[in-house]
Amino acid sequence: MAGSTFGKLFRVTTWGESHGKGIGVVVDGCPAGLPLCEEDIQIFLDRRKPGQSKFTTPRKESDTVEILSGVFEGKTTGTPISMVVWNENQKSKDYSEIASYYRPGHADYPFDEKYGFRDYRGGGRSSGRETIGRVAAGAIAIKLLKQMGISFLTYSESIGPVKISKEHFDVAEIQNNKLYMPDAVAAAKASAYLEKLLEEKNSSGGIIYCEVNGLPVGLGEPVFDKIDANLAKAMFSIGSVKGFEIGDGFGVATATGLENNDSFVMAGASRKPIKTSNHSGGTLGGMTDGAPLTMRVAIKPTPSIAAPQHTVNKSGEDINIEIHGRHDPIIVPRAVVVVETMAAITVLDALLENMSSRIDRIVEFYK
Amino acid sequence: MAGSTFGKLFRVTTWGESHGKGIGVVVDGCPAGLPLCEEDIQIFLDRRKPGQSKFTTPRKESDTVEILSGVFEGKTTGTPISMVVWNENQKSKDYSEIASYYRPGHADYPFDEKYGFRDYRGGGRSSGRETIGRVAAGAIAIKLLKQMGISFLTYSESIGPVKISKEHFDVAEIQNNKLYMPDAVAAAKASAYLEKLLEEKNSSGGIIYCEVNGLPVGLGEPVFDKIDANLAKAMFSIGSVKGFEIGDGFGVATATGLENNDSFVMAGASRKPIKTSNHSGGTLGGMTDGAPLTMRVAIKPTPSIAAPQHTVNKSGEDINIEIHGRHDPIIVPRAVVVVETMAAITVLDALLENMSSRIDRIVEFYK
Amino acid sequence: MAGSTFGKLFRVTTWGESHGKGIGVVVDGCPAGLPLCEEDIQIFLDRRKPGQSKFTTPRKESDTVEILSGVFEGKTTGTPISMVVWNENQKSKDYSEIASYYRPGHADYPFDEKYGFRDYRGGGRSSGRETIGRVAAGAIAIKLLKQMGISFLTYSESIGPVKISKEHFDVAEIQNNKLYMPDAVAAAKASAYLEKLLEEKNSSGGIIYCEVNGLPVGLGEPVFDKIDANLAKAMFSIGSVKGFEIGDGFGVATATGLENNDSFVMAGASRKPIKTSNHSGGTLGGMTDGAPLTMRVAIKPTPSIAAPQHTVNKSGEDINIEIHGRHDPIIVPRAVVVVETMAAITVLDALLENMSSRIDRIVEFYK
Amino acid sequence: MAGSTFGKLFRVTTWGESHGKGIGVVVDGCPAGLPLCEEDIQIFLDRRKPGQSKFTTPRKESDTVEILSGVFEGKTTGTPISMVVWNENQKSKDYSEIASYYRPGHADYPFDEKYGFRDYRGGGRSSGRETIGRVAAGAIAIKLLKQMGISFLTYSESIGPVKISKEHFDVAEIQNNKLYMPDAVAAAKASAYLEKLLEEKNSSGGIIYCEVNGLPVGLGEPVFDKIDANLAKAMFSIGSVKGFEIGDGFGVATATGLENNDSFVMAGASRKPIKTSNHSGGTLGGMTDGAPLTMRVAIKPTPSIAAPQHTVNKSGEDINIEIHGRHDPIIVPRAVVVVETMAAITVLDALLENMSSRIDRIVEFYK
Repeated sequence: MAGSTFGKLFRVTTWGESHGKGIGVVVDGCPAGLPLCEEDIQIFLDRRKPGQSKFTTPRKESDTVEILSGVFEGKTTGTPISMVVWNENQKSKDYSEIASYYRPGHADYPFDEKYGFRDYRGGGRSSGRETIGRVAAGAIAIKLLKQMGISFLTYSESIGPVKISKEHFDVAEIQNNKLYMPDAVAAAKASAYLEKLLEEKNSSGGIIYCEVNGLPVGLGEPVFDKIDANLAKAMFSIGSVKGFEIGDGFGVATATGLENNDSFVMAGASRKPIKTSNHSGGTLGGMTDGAPLTMRVAIKPTPSIAAPQHTVNKSGEDINIEIHGRHDPIIVPRAVVVVETMAAITVLDALLENMSSRIDRIVEFYK
Repeated sequence: MAGSTFGKLFRVTTWGESHGKGIGVVVDGCPAGLPLCEEDIQIFLDRRKPGQSKFTTPRKESDTVEILSGVFEGKTTGTPISMVVWNENQKSKDYSEIASYYRPGHADYPFDEKYGFRDYRGGGRSSGRETIGRVAAGAIAIKLLKQMGISFLTYSESIGPVKISKEHFDVAEIQNNKLYMPDAVAAAKASAYLEKLLEEKNSSGGIIYCEVNGLPVGLGEPVFDKIDANLAKAMFSIGSVKGFEIGDGFGVATATGLENNDSFVMAGASRKPIKTSNHSGGTLGGMTDGAPLTMRVAIKPTPSIAAPQHTVNKSGEDINIEIHGRHDPIIVPRAVVVVETMAAITVLDALLENMSSRIDRIVEFYK
Repeated sequence: MAGSTFGKLFRVTTWGESHGKGIGVVVDGCPAGLPLCEEDIQIFLDRRKPGQSKFTTPRKESDTVEILSGVFEGKTTGTPISMVVWNENQKSKDYSEIASYYRPGHADYPFDEKYGFRDYRGGGRSSGRETIGRVAAGAIAIKLLKQMGISFLTYSESIGPVKISKEHFDVAEIQNNKLYMPDAVAAAKASAYLEKLLEEKNSSGGIIYCEVNGLPVGLGEPVFDKIDANLAKAMFSIGSVKGFEIGDGFGVATATGLENNDSFVMAGASRKPIKTSNHSGGTLGGMTDGAPLTMRVAIKPTPSIAAPQHTVNKSGEDINIEIHGRHDPIIVPRAVVVVETMAAITVLDALLENMSSRIDRIVEFYK
Repeated sequence: MAGSTFGKLFRVTTWGESHGKGIGVVVDGCPAGLPLCEEDIQIFLDRRKPGQSKFTTPRKESDTVEILSGVFEGKTTGTPISMVVWNENQKSKDYSEIASYYRPGHADYPFDEKYGFRDYRGGGRSSGRETIGRVAAGAIAIKLLKQMGISFLTYSESIGPVKISKEHFDVAEIQNNKLYMPDAVAAAKASAYLEKLLEEKNSSGGIIYCEVNGLPVGLGEPVFDKIDANLAKAMFSIGSVKGFEIGDGFGVATATGLENNDSFVMAGASRKPIKTSNHSGGTLGGMTDGAPLTMRVAIKPTPSIAAPQHTVNKSGEDINIEIHGRHDPIIVPRAVVVVETMAAITVLDALLENMSSRIDRIVEFYK
């Protein structure tokens, strides 16, 4: 299980399991001089912590972050920033049953095949709690990017069949409802939908929208390290993600070139080329094009459901199971901040790599 | 423009521009002992070469591959395999006009911002011709994977509004029509649609489907290097890709857990767990789950169109342009083999990395 | 300060500073199924901890390791192994003086230039305490390699002008003296030498020898990732290392080909080629050749000395200083285990990568 | 044989074998805007090409470089620079004998074990000709670094027992003799020594000195990616290197702290701290310290010698051999430019990575 590190210059390494001692992250390559304290991180972690509503697991965790290294006199030093959230509620219940069979929609079977056995307590390494490390790292990235005027807008675009509407769209509403939807009407409908699913011991999927504003033109490396490609990897590295789109996404399949191409015009006081539309989602040839980066992420329904399901056990018997325990009927709202922070980590990394693209700028830098 | 390398153990580095001397690739980390000759590569390159139909650019290129290193006595030696396709038709016409403005839907503007200037002949480094290197590298991966019973099925699923149907689905048909659609009826309709677009100096997008069969369980590294994540990056690294799905993809957003979970049953002579459905697309927790890997890729319409468009030039003037030259009204059919080979490169890399997952297997290996 | 990660498949990321909360490491890519507990790690950490003799800093630290993740039911799970040693004695004395000037032989000046400021408490990130993470990671590598019959022999070969002799060479003696010399006579002389230096408020350098036995033939990748090259990087990444040799090292400069070439003969029951001498130090063309890997590492004298020295302060004044505090007059004995564990990490990584060198072995592996 | 790539941001991938079609390199990540033509590369290749004197192989090769991509209108574009030198003299003589046994001092045996067979024509991938790719890549790095006032001084310090003296030291002399020694008297003695060895069908080792001047302070990443560590890897990745030193190297082992520490003083019009000595070789804590980077590399005697040697063949028989063919009795003079270019590649990579060390500089850069 190498593969716990993401990024090239701003490097994020997560560790920890659902029911181990804690969940942590090491951020290597964070530039020196950024003011940073635990509260900067905590506000992001609070957006994903459990127990925020009836639609999130009742597992009791304060998810309080502790910075262990890399910050001195209130500023990042350029050395690795190690952060940890101690698991408070990891007391293992009896897991002997869950250890014996393969839950549908979970990684139990591949884990056993790949490693010979698995940590069967909760989701183990594949638990959603692993994302704590990503959110903590991304909180730093977002704070850093903010200094350059780069900002993020992320929300639940749909939950099950309930989509937000242009009519009721209101950014301020995102923080008002526990589903992180920018539409109070849709949020209410989605709540009703989720309540029904809870009764049915079932769960729901949904879509998250993320937008990055204020980016310089030219971030991303053509060919394999396109900013789109790195964002796609970032998003698909989040458990439960099954689809990803940039700009018009799958809509381009039925569009024509005339419809899909964004025209340039000269604009603003600075007389820079800007696009009159943004079908491309802010990227051309794998590089940012001056328009907002826009993307959509499809999240599958929580696989842990209490309704009866068929599966097999490790003895090779076909069995019927019901999974009890603390599970979210919907992951989408808590995943909003995960999507946002993964986008931030990816964008920051591209921004750092881009600094070495031109000899004239390098010579100027070292003067 | 670092970022021309893909893969960790099976490493692919491409080079070359549309109108430079040639297009090439270096494959480092190919295991030794694989029988390999140029014909093995050529059959894949022939699937993407221009001039196959009226829907592909009439640019005349034989796209003949030459192996420059890494093969001895008909077998790979374990050393880097360098391959090149010399550009035959790179005689530059007058590019002074195209050099002066930013084509909508192209990377011209980001290139100029990032690098200070650009190779304006054809698509430069962002040309579709760059994929020659990927296809050559992936041809090796596919040949190697075949020795382990792993195979690929890839085709055009839709072109513009024309989708293949279950009714007329026929794998054998894929090679029969130049659109690589497994449905003769759909292919005929798509041809008519494309002819209309050609007349209108317009272009079309579409969707490519890819399936990988015969994979061992457990390939892919949980967390950031999930096989899904690496496939997502692989696909989004192909120019013009705007959307990617694994399994049910965006369909999961409206599904419930009960609908989306795949049940396991014990099956076959080997009495192994297998899934009774494949909503997951062959991956659980970022690892292969024994079912076929299934994915869909959305391709945007060719941005180079002859119809009039608005844009700006480098002098900061708003202008109207018409792009002439040799352009495909649809990229999808030629991109089918690119999607397949990128999938193969990704899968092979995961297969090699997976060898070090268990101490018992390592000890056995070195006995 | 990216650059806190070492290794490709067995990946080691360290974090922490001399006077921060603790020192830690994340090991990603450790194969699953290795029995592991804290005692396995502690015995290695005890070889480098302070306070073992009058020649090591009297800083009081138990250096007790805690495993935070990656081990379940006594075995490694294949997930990241996070380990920490909490700093017990990090109470900061008054560092205002040391913060104001640049200590000769230390990284103070480059740190200030590179990052704009520095953590001036003790050595900060450049403290020898950073090696705790390496030793903890390497302890795992050594345990794993032991299962394949691979073992290490590492000791102090010289301290200042005092060298071990063939005459008194005794492996058992290494653990008997606090200088980790395999020669009681030399150890006594070295002790006397160090006592004299202590009185003079001075310090000493020395040489560490390391040997790896039982390696399969062919580990290491030709060209840039030669096993020699990766070992050289591993050793030079240890603070205070100024020289590295494989086999005869600098001795080859004055040798002839006839003297330096190692002849092969057929030997043993297995009738395998073996070398009759080992000038090469166990590597040919960057790959292991069946003979023991042998290497020597030169360590500079501790730069922190109490004798008066000249330097400059941050205000740009020339000043004279005396550095007080808890410093080792010699680093060599405590660095012995650091050299050994870094060698182990490097060798294990090569062993894992080597598994994908041959198609026949890969096919066999996946059968 | 992954491992044919070196560097993180300035990435060099070499390919090719001694007797294949050619030797090549792809440089990815070269900043855009550097004026570059083939002559810039050729002058470096000419320093390593064969046939310069009676002490180099008479193999006839013009080693003419061709740039295949990445340069447009005389400047680097930021895209991969592919370069090739076609092998002219690769006509294979009868290699059946050499194919049958394991040459002492060569990689034949590990190659066979690792890959199952080997390209036995000449050195195959382990040939000194592989360094053509490094030299071509490094020529670009040196040209780029020159724009920032960074320069290199590299020469043969000793050949066999013959060392250069301070008395006759003359930089201008380096280009005057074919041994690249900065001392005409030593060069004459070394020539006589080599002539004697030629008669005896024997060969010699030696030492190369390299110095880098004009570096900014702070290049290199503390911990694993110290500039010393990356240089050590760079040098040990060159075939035949058996020892490496920075600054005083192994001399530090017998020095005391008082002797080895370099004092700082304020100096020059700029009133910057500078060191009054340079025992450290220009690096403190893995970062450049403002003094010249100084290093020494030990090169083993050419293993291919015509004198009789004992070895084994692939049938497991003990045999005596004499190796005939075109071999250098000394590698050192031709390796001088290889050492210099590998140092340049390493330094440039550190210089690019260092740009992201401080938030204030990043914010300034993107203003």
